[in-house]
Amino acid sequence: MKIPNYLMGEWRDGLGAGTALVDPVTGEELARATSDGIDLAAALDYARTQGGPALRALSFKERGALLGKAVEVQNANRDKYADIALKNSGNTKIDAAIDIDGGTGTLFFYARLGAKLGDAKFLKDPGFERMAKDEAFQGMHIWVPMVGAGIHINAFNFPSWGLWEKVACAILSGVPVVAKPATSTALLSYAMVKDVIEANVFPKGALNLIVGNARDLMDATNGTDCVAFTGSADTAIKLRTNANALRRGTRFNAEADSLNLSLLGPDVTASSPEFELFIKEVAREMTVKAGQKCTAIRRALVPVELAKDVSDALAARLAKTVTGNPRNESVRMGPLVNRAQQTAALDGIRQLVAEARIVTGGTDGFIPLDADPNLSAFVAPTLLQCDDPRGAKAVHEIEVFGPVCTIMPYHGAAEAYDLAARGGGSLVASLFTGDDAFATEATLALAPHHGRVLVVDEKVGASQTGHGIVMPMTTHGGPGRAGGGEELGGTRGLRFYHQRTAVQGRLDRLQALGAAAAESVL
Amino acid sequence: MKIPNYLMGEWRDGLGAGTALVDPVTGEELARATSDGIDLAAALDYARTQGGPALRALSFKERGALLGKAVEVQNANRDKYADIALKNSGNTKIDAAIDIDGGTGTLFFYARLGAKLGDAKFLKDPGFERMAKDEAFQGMHIWVPMVGAGIHINAFNFPSWGLWEKVACAILSGVPVVAKPATSTALLSYAMVKDVIEANVFPKGALNLIVGNARDLMDATNGTDCVAFTGSADTAIKLRTNANALRRGTRFNAEADSLNLSLLGPDVTASSPEFELFIKEVAREMTVKAGQKCTAIRRALVPVELAKDVSDALAARLAKTVTGNPRNESVRMGPLVNRAQQTAALDGIRQLVAEARIVTGGTDGFIPLDADPNLSAFVAPTLLQCDDPRGAKAVHEIEVFGPVCTIMPYHGAAEAYDLAARGGGSLVASLFTGDDAFATEATLALAPHHGRVLVVDEKVGASQTGHGIVMPMTTHGGPGRAGGGEELGGTRGLRFYHQRTAVQGRLDRLQALGAAAAESVL
Repeated sequence: MKIPNYLMGEWRDGLGAGTALVDPVTGEELARATSDGIDLAAALDYARTQGGPALRALSFKERGALLGKAVEVQNANRDKYADIALKNSGNTKIDAAIDIDGGTGTLFFYARLGAKLGDAKFLKDPGFERMAKDEAFQGMHIWVPMVGAGIHINAFNFPSWGLWEKVACAILSGVPVVAKPATSTALLSYAMVKDVIEANVFPKGALNLIVGNARDLMDATNGTDCVAFTGSADTAIKLRTNANALRRGTRFNAEADSLNLSLLGPDVTASSPEFELFIKEVAREMTVKAGQKCTAIRRALVPVELAKDVSDALAARLAKTVTGNPRNESVRMGPLVNRAQQTAALDGIRQLVAEARIVTGGTDGFIPLDADPNLSAFVAPTLLQCDDPRGAKAVHEIEVFGPVCTIMPYHGAAEAYDLAARGGGSLVASLFTGDDAFATEATLALAPHHGRVLVVDEKVGASQTGHGIVMPMTTHGGPGRAGGGEELGGTRGLRFYHQRTAVQGRLDRLQALGAAAAESVL
Repeated sequence: MKIPNYLMGEWRDGLGAGTALVDPVTGEELARATSDGIDLAAALDYARTQGGPALRALSFKERGALLGKAVEVQNANRDKYADIALKNSGNTKIDAAIDIDGGTGTLFFYARLGAKLGDAKFLKDPGFERMAKDEAFQGMHIWVPMVGAGIHINAFNFPSWGLWEKVACAILSGVPVVAKPATSTALLSYAMVKDVIEANVFPKGALNLIVGNARDLMDATNGTDCVAFTGSADTAIKLRTNANALRRGTRFNAEADSLNLSLLGPDVTASSPEFELFIKEVAREMTVKAGQKCTAIRRALVPVELAKDVSDALAARLAKTVTGNPRNESVRMGPLVNRAQQTAALDGIRQLVAEARIVTGGTDGFIPLDADPNLSAFVAPTLLQCDDPRGAKAVHEIEVFGPVCTIMPYHGAAEAYDLAARGGGSLVASLFTGDDAFATEATLALAPHHGRVLVVDEKVGASQTGHGIVMPMTTHGGPGRAGGGEELGGTRGLRFYHQRTAVQGRLDRLQALGAAAAESVL
């Protein structure tokens, strides 16, 4: 089976054999995908000229209603998606839920936000700016939709969530989408888009899908387009430096891999409730989706006095994590997404071992449950400990994209902050502490290097949404090596798809213009 | 005289002969500048480690007070600056005022903003974000200062304003500055920084100056730094694609040249007050600073029926603009900044002439008042008319950085909007109309392609602040070829120097954190 692309209002087969999509448990080929031979520049132009005007003619409320319809379609087909996620991504039920329900849930959030924003078709910053002595002449800032396309280049780990979180923000902004999921796991993206297309949810040209290679797509972009990329820092640089995109000033947002950390507060003891919450969170982050989340905890910073307790507790918990074929009900952790990723992760562990010792797991001899180690893509949950994180380099710089985390003992808060900064900019830090004053101090110290800081204590231990879970209410992205981008965060997620324009003129004209806008913080 | 750099807390001479700074009226060499032999990586690190912590220890109010002191120092030395602007930039009194008072005025604006922001040291978005059923767990968004340096690479046309508008936003944010003005006109930047340094206005390391080449400075940046560039699109690309900066995720803002336009509304007749206002504005934009403003009007879009009237009226006005040595009191327009710029502008006019005819001015035989055409850098105010702007390309793409503008007749509003978009993204559009409904429609049509839209009619004709004048209350920058950046705009100008971080945690902890922040829209 060759899965087709959806471009220029129809399903289009690419030429040639294409790339194989495989089952990472069995190695079985599930489908093939290619975009070869298709005029992607024409497809992009179709999105801009057909999808764009149709979406911009709608209000936020109307665009939100379209997202709501997509939610209905997806809910009706949810079981099918979970089955595909199992087959093409080796997902456990929980893994699949994070991806599938995460995608649908984000669409639902933006559907409701659309309803809240109402009949407006554009946004404004609050207030007016006095410009001159004459109060009749003032300024204001409006946000109008970009008139190009949203080009979404997504990572293999979230074929649903990665697709729909970006689609939700673009479509609600009035910007059509050309989505290019990673080919290796595109079966789920394809199935979900197909259902939405067949249900005629969006206007023609508003939602387009490239299941094969993005090929020369960047060469066709211009200054009205918005490229949102999720994936490796190397690919981000390649896309960002496309000569045409640079010359035209194509907008670019990157959300790249990073060395996220979790910090156990100096106030915590082995019997504090925050200790147990920390252990649970680190273990969960290592094993959910087999650690293949850009947000996963890679560095566990713990007071030096607690290093042994943390190491023992995590090792004990990981020992109980049954890893293998997710078709077996007892399995809690599945494989990596394919053997290329497995090889890369094992290589990464080998590099970390130069600076850290293995507590549990490692590169050799792991036997998954109900799966052939020679055909499947498993990596053992691997906990390392680096006893000299100040002298180390690789543990702060090499992200092993799998079930891998390194414990780093620290001496005092200042050293912990310094170690945190060594990541060069990350998506998320979490902080487990019962000390309110330390929570404030550490949040401010970690914030310059992180896009999100999660602060957990006993009282929110049960309700907190998770270190690695990206919620649509708050922004997602991070500075420095994390790409410098921003996605989601309520109306903030619409920012990337809008142009903020200062308008200067007669106050009553500005008031009339502003009355047609929804007011929000982007 | 060789002017020194101010780095690592002291004045440092570069090695070698350096680059000559000349008087563009006489060709006389005024000074030389070089940064050769200086360890710029160490200088950058000094800014980060000395200036940064000192500034971040201060509140907005305290940082604003420092800016206020800089204003006092500059006001006390204003006459000296005007003399330098005349000598090194060939500025008329009005040109010098725009640059010098524009710089000091922007510092003053941010000094007052600092006072308004008060005792806080960081910012927050309004409100909290409900994250879960449990109301105890919520989210918020704070803005904390970047912990690197603001690296400011500025253009030759505004050695004062370009310097201080960026310094104001960075310092108020708590971010130290390494400023690198264009060497050719750095005499004014040097003199102003020298006075501020001698008055001990800022903490050590907070304000640094490179008067010579930026050399390998980009190779020393990292993900905590913020590079703000103003200048040509080509240089922007060169800086943006620096391998180290890409790998580290150095933040980058560009404000590049663009094909700004002014649109005369279809409602206007030759006897409308808006007609006269439009003529005045276009002529002013062509001649102030000899058209060397990134915001200057390059394309004058006029209803086809009015093209002859506009052309005649502009030609008549330009004929009265005395161009020559600004030491002569009758002179209203000075030279370009040097002979290299003169050559580039004349070349540019020759390219436009392939698509447009010369109404007045041109490339040949211009004799400035009181200046030797063989030594000076003058270009005649040059008005062109392109009668087929839909079929033309160069007039929408080639920015001639001098006193040059092209009239483009349009047939109906839709065509005008289409022509506007051909600029590929610009800094400013202005709109002259007496029709309120058209003002709204056209603002929304122009906004996606512009960072600012100025809407003028009779009632604000006297108080409006000008098409080309960048005011600190509203944002400055533009999409696409204009660089995609944003500067200024009240607190919005602080955005670039802050990291927005989502904080999730116990609501009362968030409230305590938020109580220490100033709330604003960035």
